[in-house]
Amino acid sequence: MTSDFSFTVSRTEGAARTGTISMPRGDIRTPAFMPVGTAATVKAMYPQQVRELGADIVLGNVYHLMLRPGAERVAELGGLHRFMNWPYPILTDSGGFQVMSLAKLRKLDENGVTFQSHIDGSRHVLTPERSMEIQHLLGSNIQMQFDECVKLPASDAEVERAMRLSLRWAERSRKAFRAEPGRAIYGIVQGGANEALRIESAKALADMDFHGLAIGGLAVGEPQDVMLAMIETVVPHLPTERPRYLMGVGTPDDLIECVARGVDMFDCVMPTRAGRHGQAYTSEGRLNLRNAKYANDPRPLDENSPCAAGRDYSRAYLHHLVRSEEILAMMLLTWNNLAYYQQLMQGMRDAIAEGRFADFRRRSREIWRKDADV
Amino acid sequence: MTSDFSFTVSRTEGAARTGTISMPRGDIRTPAFMPVGTAATVKAMYPQQVRELGADIVLGNVYHLMLRPGAERVAELGGLHRFMNWPYPILTDSGGFQVMSLAKLRKLDENGVTFQSHIDGSRHVLTPERSMEIQHLLGSNIQMQFDECVKLPASDAEVERAMRLSLRWAERSRKAFRAEPGRAIYGIVQGGANEALRIESAKALADMDFHGLAIGGLAVGEPQDVMLAMIETVVPHLPTERPRYLMGVGTPDDLIECVARGVDMFDCVMPTRAGRHGQAYTSEGRLNLRNAKYANDPRPLDENSPCAAGRDYSRAYLHHLVRSEEILAMMLLTWNNLAYYQQLMQGMRDAIAEGRFADFRRRSREIWRKDADV
Repeated sequence: MTSDFSFTVSRTEGAARTGTISMPRGDIRTPAFMPVGTAATVKAMYPQQVRELGADIVLGNVYHLMLRPGAERVAELGGLHRFMNWPYPILTDSGGFQVMSLAKLRKLDENGVTFQSHIDGSRHVLTPERSMEIQHLLGSNIQMQFDECVKLPASDAEVERAMRLSLRWAERSRKAFRAEPGRAIYGIVQGGANEALRIESAKALADMDFHGLAIGGLAVGEPQDVMLAMIETVVPHLPTERPRYLMGVGTPDDLIECVARGVDMFDCVMPTRAGRHGQAYTSEGRLNLRNAKYANDPRPLDENSPCAAGRDYSRAYLHHLVRSEEILAMMLLTWNNLAYYQQLMQGMRDAIAEGRFADFRRRSREIWRKDADV
Repeated sequence: MTSDFSFTVSRTEGAARTGTISMPRGDIRTPAFMPVGTAATVKAMYPQQVRELGADIVLGNVYHLMLRPGAERVAELGGLHRFMNWPYPILTDSGGFQVMSLAKLRKLDENGVTFQSHIDGSRHVLTPERSMEIQHLLGSNIQMQFDECVKLPASDAEVERAMRLSLRWAERSRKAFRAEPGRAIYGIVQGGANEALRIESAKALADMDFHGLAIGGLAVGEPQDVMLAMIETVVPHLPTERPRYLMGVGTPDDLIECVARGVDMFDCVMPTRAGRHGQAYTSEGRLNLRNAKYANDPRPLDENSPCAAGRDYSRAYLHHLVRSEEILAMMLLTWNNLAYYQQLMQGMRDAIAEGRFADFRRRSREIWRKDADV
C-alpha cells in the first residue's frame, strides 16, 4: 500500500466509530457522506457550496464520465479535480453498477462487459483493467474494484456466480491499480442477501491488499431489515483498521442504523435527487413542497438548517418555485438537503466522539419514524 | 409625487448621463440594468448573487405573478420582497405586454383585457386599475402604467389607436396609483416606429405626474437603427429631470448605444435566457459553449470576468455541462452573463463620470462587432 493513505479511529461506541482518513488532497472525517457528482457536477450545486456544507469528498461515476466527456479528455484537461473545480478527495465507482442499470445491449463474460452507450449507442468495453485505467485517468483518489452487482431478488446460484466473478475481478483490479501518491483502492463485498456468500466474499477481500472495503449490492430494493442484517453479517469479517464503505445508501435513518453497525462511508443520490423533485429533508422529517398545504405557509423550510436555503425562504415560496418548475427550486432544495445530510453526519461524529451516540440515534429515529409528508 | 423618490444626474457626456435614483429600499445607480425575475426568481440565481454582481433593482412580471402564486397571496405572505428574499428595489411591469404575447383568447376593449391563463386556462381581467392594485399588492417600488403594446410591423392606424388607448390608460393608471412611501409610477411612451405618434405620446406623458418615463414597444423585432432613431426622436421630449427607462432592451451593443442617447434604465431577459441556452457574454464577445470547438479548450470562459463562473471553470467543462444538460451549466452561464452585464453598466457609469464615455463606446463596439461564435 501507499503510505499516504491512513485511517485512524479516534473513538468507538458499540460498533459505531468515528475517525479520519488522511490523504494528500485532504482529510475525510468519518462517518462520511459523499455527495454524488455523477457527470462531474453535484447537480444544482456550485462546488464551493458542497465544500462549505462539510463534504470532504465527492463521488464521480465512471460509466457517465467515460461516455461523456471521456476519461482521456478529462486527463488531457488536467484531471477530474481541475475539470470540476473540486480540489479535494474524489472517489470513483468502477462503472459496473451503472453498466447494468443504464447501458443498452450488455454482454457480460469473464473478461468484462461490452455495452452500448445510453447517450449515443456507441459501443464500449469495461474490464477490471479498463476500469482501473479510466479511474486513473480521471485522477480518482479512491478507486473501486470492477464488480458485477446482480439485482435482487436473484437465485442463490446467480448471486454466487456474480460474487465469485467479482472476486476474480477484484484480483485483476488490484493488480491493474497503479499505486501512486494520493491513490487508494477499495474492494467490494458482494453476495446478495446470502449470509454464507457475503462472509466468503468479505473474507476473501480482507486477504487482498485493499485500502478499504465496500459493501455493494445492497439498498437495491430489499427491506431495510434485510440490508441491516447483511451489514451485521459482513462487518465482523472486515479488518477493523480499514474504512468500511456502504455503497448507494441511503435515507437518514439508514445512515444512522448503518453507522451504528460500523459503517464509515456512504454515498447516495437521495438528497440531491429529492431536491430536484420538490422534497426537503428537515429537522421535522421529509417535506414534499409540491403539497398544496404549503402554498400559504410563511414558515422557513427548516429554522434549524445550517444553510440559508433552509432559513431564508418560506415554504410558500419554495412551493411556488416547485410548482413553477423554477431552477431555483432545485438549487435551494438540493442545498438544503445536502446541508441536512452533512449536519447529520457531523451530529453522528460528534455524538460518537462524546460517547452519546445511543441517545443521538434514539432521538433521530423518532423524527424519521414520523416522516410526515411522504 | 412622493418626496422619497429622487433622481440626481451627477454627470453627462453628450446625451449620456450617470446619476442615482434614491428610494427607501436603496439607491439605483444609473445607467442601470435590471435583471428579470419573472416568476419571483432571477432564473438559476440565488438572490444574494444577483445583489453581489451589482444589481440595485430587479424586475418582476405582473402577468406571471398574478397567475401564480397570485398577488393577494404574495401580499398575505408579506410582499414580493420578502417572498423572493430580495429586500432591495423592485420594478414591476404592468402585465400588458405579456398578456399580448403569452395569454390565450385575449379580448381587448376600452376597459382593459380579458384573457385566459396559459397555465391552467383560468379567466382573468386586467385593467389599469387592477394592474395598479396588483403592483401595489406585490409591494412594487416602481410600478408601470398599464398599456397596450402592438406588434410591429402594424398599420399607422393600429399603432395610433393603441397609443391613444395607452394614454387614456396612463391617466387611469396614474389616478389608481396609491402614492405611499417607497412607491413610484412610470408612464410608457408608445407609438411604434411613427415619429409623430411617439412625440405626441411623449409630450402627453411628460405632462402627467409620473416619476419616470419609459419607452415601450421597441426591440420587438425591428432593426437596431429603427430603434435608435425612435429613441433619438423621443428623448428630447422627455423631462430631463426624470429617469428614462427603455423596456426589454437589449444586447450589450444596444445598451451602449441607448445610453449614448440618454437612456437611464434597462431590463432584458437576454443574459439570463442566453445563460440557459449555452451562450456566454464575455470580454471577447458572445460564445456558444455548445460548439464542439470548446470540447478540449482548457481556457476559462473569461479571465476578465468579475465572477468565479468566468474564471474558475474551463470552456471544456462548460461545454460538457451544456451538452450533458446539467443544471450547473445554466447556473454558471447565467451568473457569468449577469456579471458581464453589470460590469458593462459599471463601465459605462465610470466612463461617463470620468468624461471618457465616447472612448468606452468605441472600444466596446469593436468587441460586439466581431461577436465571433453566434
